[in-house]
Amino acid sequence: MFLTNQWYCVALSSEVTDKPFRRIVCNEPLLLYRNTESKVVTLEDRCSHRQAPLSTGEVIGNNIQCKYHGFVFDNGGRCIHIPHQNSIPERAHISSYPVQEKWGFVWVWKGVNAEANINQIPDLHWTEKKGRSPVYIYFHVKANHQLVADNLLDISHADYLHSDTLGSKSGVMNGPQPDRVEFRTWDEGNKVHSFRKLTNVEVASFPKKWGGFKKNVDRTNIQMWEAPNTVHVHLEFENTENKILINHDHIMTPETETTTHYFMDFTRDFGISGTEYPTDADVYQEQYSVISGDDLPMVESQQENIHLYNGVVDVPVKADKLISAVHRRLADMYTKQGVSIPSYVLVQR
Amino acid sequence: MFLTNQWYCVALSSEVTDKPFRRIVCNEPLLLYRNTESKVVTLEDRCSHRQAPLSTGEVIGNNIQCKYHGFVFDNGGRCIHIPHQNSIPERAHISSYPVQEKWGFVWVWKGVNAEANINQIPDLHWTEKKGRSPVYIYFHVKANHQLVADNLLDISHADYLHSDTLGSKSGVMNGPQPDRVEFRTWDEGNKVHSFRKLTNVEVASFPKKWGGFKKNVDRTNIQMWEAPNTVHVHLEFENTENKILINHDHIMTPETETTTHYFMDFTRDFGISGTEYPTDADVYQEQYSVISGDDLPMVESQQENIHLYNGVVDVPVKADKLISAVHRRLADMYTKQGVSIPSYVLVQR
Amino acid sequence: MFLTNQWYCVALSSEVTDKPFRRIVCNEPLLLYRNTESKVVTLEDRCSHRQAPLSTGEVIGNNIQCKYHGFVFDNGGRCIHIPHQNSIPERAHISSYPVQEKWGFVWVWKGVNAEANINQIPDLHWTEKKGRSPVYIYFHVKANHQLVADNLLDISHADYLHSDTLGSKSGVMNGPQPDRVEFRTWDEGNKVHSFRKLTNVEVASFPKKWGGFKKNVDRTNIQMWEAPNTVHVHLEFENTENKILINHDHIMTPETETTTHYFMDFTRDFGISGTEYPTDADVYQEQYSVISGDDLPMVESQQENIHLYNGVVDVPVKADKLISAVHRRLADMYTKQGVSIPSYVLVQR
Repeated sequence: MFLTNQWYCVALSSEVTDKPFRRIVCNEPLLLYRNTESKVVTLEDRCSHRQAPLSTGEVIGNNIQCKYHGFVFDNGGRCIHIPHQNSIPERAHISSYPVQEKWGFVWVWKGVNAEANINQIPDLHWTEKKGRSPVYIYFHVKANHQLVADNLLDISHADYLHSDTLGSKSGVMNGPQPDRVEFRTWDEGNKVHSFRKLTNVEVASFPKKWGGFKKNVDRTNIQMWEAPNTVHVHLEFENTENKILINHDHIMTPETETTTHYFMDFTRDFGISGTEYPTDADVYQEQYSVISGDDLPMVESQQENIHLYNGVVDVPVKADKLISAVHRRLADMYTKQGVSIPSYVLVQR
Repeated sequence: MFLTNQWYCVALSSEVTDKPFRRIVCNEPLLLYRNTESKVVTLEDRCSHRQAPLSTGEVIGNNIQCKYHGFVFDNGGRCIHIPHQNSIPERAHISSYPVQEKWGFVWVWKGVNAEANINQIPDLHWTEKKGRSPVYIYFHVKANHQLVADNLLDISHADYLHSDTLGSKSGVMNGPQPDRVEFRTWDEGNKVHSFRKLTNVEVASFPKKWGGFKKNVDRTNIQMWEAPNTVHVHLEFENTENKILINHDHIMTPETETTTHYFMDFTRDFGISGTEYPTDADVYQEQYSVISGDDLPMVESQQENIHLYNGVVDVPVKADKLISAVHRRLADMYTKQGVSIPSYVLVQR
Repeated sequence: MFLTNQWYCVALSSEVTDKPFRRIVCNEPLLLYRNTESKVVTLEDRCSHRQAPLSTGEVIGNNIQCKYHGFVFDNGGRCIHIPHQNSIPERAHISSYPVQEKWGFVWVWKGVNAEANINQIPDLHWTEKKGRSPVYIYFHVKANHQLVADNLLDISHADYLHSDTLGSKSGVMNGPQPDRVEFRTWDEGNKVHSFRKLTNVEVASFPKKWGGFKKNVDRTNIQMWEAPNTVHVHLEFENTENKILINHDHIMTPETETTTHYFMDFTRDFGISGTEYPTDADVYQEQYSVISGDDLPMVESQQENIHLYNGVVDVPVKADKLISAVHRRLADMYTKQGVSIPSYVLVQR
């Protein structure tokens, strides 16, 4: 079971064109295409007649024609043509979904259509900030969406999983410790926040190159979560030599219970001339290789272990304060919706 | 559950030789081979001893020897040799099946052996007609057999799915309409028939080449269904320039609930000299590419959608009269057999 | 369900190094590595924190560090470090398993740790015999472990399945019979034994090359089974020209209900100079090709047939006396353990 009455991110803007596009979201196939005004249309991806996927058909003007027997549906899912037949049965119409394009992503409302509220779409305004050049990436992940989200909610994983690229081995047994570790979590309306600052730590290879750092840095990250599963990460690397700033967003949408659509954007306040390192292509390559090389194998192997060690329960620690706060919030939402709390949402109160 | 007391087509004649051949039919593995008189033998594909597939063994004269421990079975499934042992337990014998070779296909009776009636095998005499040269093709399909059959029972799909090759966009929204559309369906004994004629329609690329047509044609097709799932299609393209005639048969046999053995023959009254276009090789290539390129991806994607949109129900239209008539017939047969009607058989009365 | 309080062979000694190694045994993932004293450590392959596999982590001295967030566990599974946190929750410790390295294999006790008894590890002393050079092989098999074991308990399969390499077609229908077939089975403490001797039979290509035989031979094999599933085979080929002797062991460990880890060693009293045929490399190549070419496809196809012919029951014959004796023993063990007898263990009393 998934949360309803939510905006789910279903595609990067660049993925949706005037050619029909199929994506399974919360176990249900969706059809996406742009109409003649370049607005995104979202329908069930099935012809009512015989369940053929409309996404194998043809967009004709604002409508979609089924490839199998030529039925035509309009933007609202109304069947408007059946070959060699004048009357159209009421049951022939299919569902359409409220859809909005914002911040470079396509968001679809899954729930009661009349209750769709555009203000609920996460505010990712840094993607449009002057002097920033957002880079967008899509990943398909063979793991439950919450495992992918938790990976981002516990940023301490960067110290180990990404010790060679983004993090630095902080808190290692018998190793050098940072001068100071600050970490706090708080709620703000619909959002859950956290602040973590490590003072005087080694700088890993990527921020080293980005900021031209030679000495240790202070590493700050501020996170912001909102439902159904968007994690905003604000990242700072700073010392007497330089200070660099990154805002990136990670949006996890369930495809099924055990597979996830993972969308991200990455914005920075350096290297945006388009020619100097890091260019957009450099950023894409770096982020793609770290996430597909480190994070995704990890969450996919967690998923396999959870399956094999059926019923085993996590041991949350101090670094999991944000995960725990988010899980409590999610548990309340599932309960309010009248469905049982998924096993991926561990709650300790 | 599948229909019993039926002849199921299990192989093209050319597939069965004196080497053992395994094919799963209605969830059960069958062993097929030709004996010394070239007659087809059909047994369970398992040694009674330890369930090794006999199809990995060796045909020795009329018998089959298991590869694992050397047990020997005769044409009737009787175990006639156990190495180093004189007595043969009664339980060591395996089942054999009534089998007939006809019209270039191998038909196996699944049901009560004593009730096998050769007259129930479909009459496909055009395959032996003088001046015809039948072309045979086998396809393995990842979809329920009824989805494959329904594709052939609703020939109107040719207008769209095969608009570039076999059909022509007839009945397209706001497009040119045929002068006349005739369509009727009727029962005749064990068979269900339909007649469909489109007057004055564009001719698609394949019949254009076959008949040398330059102008619009009248397109007639007569279909004939019989249990468990054979669809005969009689096809005519005609205008003042020429008239060509095709008889082709499509036989769908369940491998499992979601996979199908699909056998076909294609006979024509043109291009049978063996040298002029279309040769048998041309026909094989054309039919193979259209069916594996258009039809099979479509029914396999229907199968996937039916799985995802669990419980969704089709919306039959006028063009589905033949499908509906056949489904009613099938529903009666399943009911008579005392099993529930499969969800693939939609019945509206 | 699997037998408990047993030593399961989980790896060849050569497979376990100071790099972490994952192997699923009886449905449970195990982590194996060598500590600073080269002793094998065996833990659950999961970090208690978030179920990440520890095998993707790093061995640091005697400990293992999780790759995800840097948790550290010692040889006994005790969590000894959580980054940026002093207290370690009791629930953070994971299980360790008694482990022994013997005869070139790694054996893990699955059951009550305190009841682990080293004397229960099978005695395979021929692997250490002077003048022998054991060759070790590992296979992964897509079949239940008992199907693999039964293949070895009924050595008569060599007469057919390996007629070209190891056996010879003995007992073939209407063929030449051996002068004499002796076959007996008996119990000895925890072991079940059998003796089978064929007098004056053809010699197949492998023993022919090994012993330089030109004439028929007497073929003797003595087998010895012990729980959970080790089969020792003592093999002799003898005539007036020569006599050669082989001891080989086959150890079947369940990965899951339908997949098996299959370990073997092969020792011989000929060709052990290291230069003359057969060298260890020759032996490896011959055994690997026969087992992966003949035996594994056979048991995997049995597994598929057992699945398709759901509920079918074997027909044991005289040659199956050892299988039957072992199955009775296994049935008693499962019953004593209070679990139902698996369908792979057929019992006739």
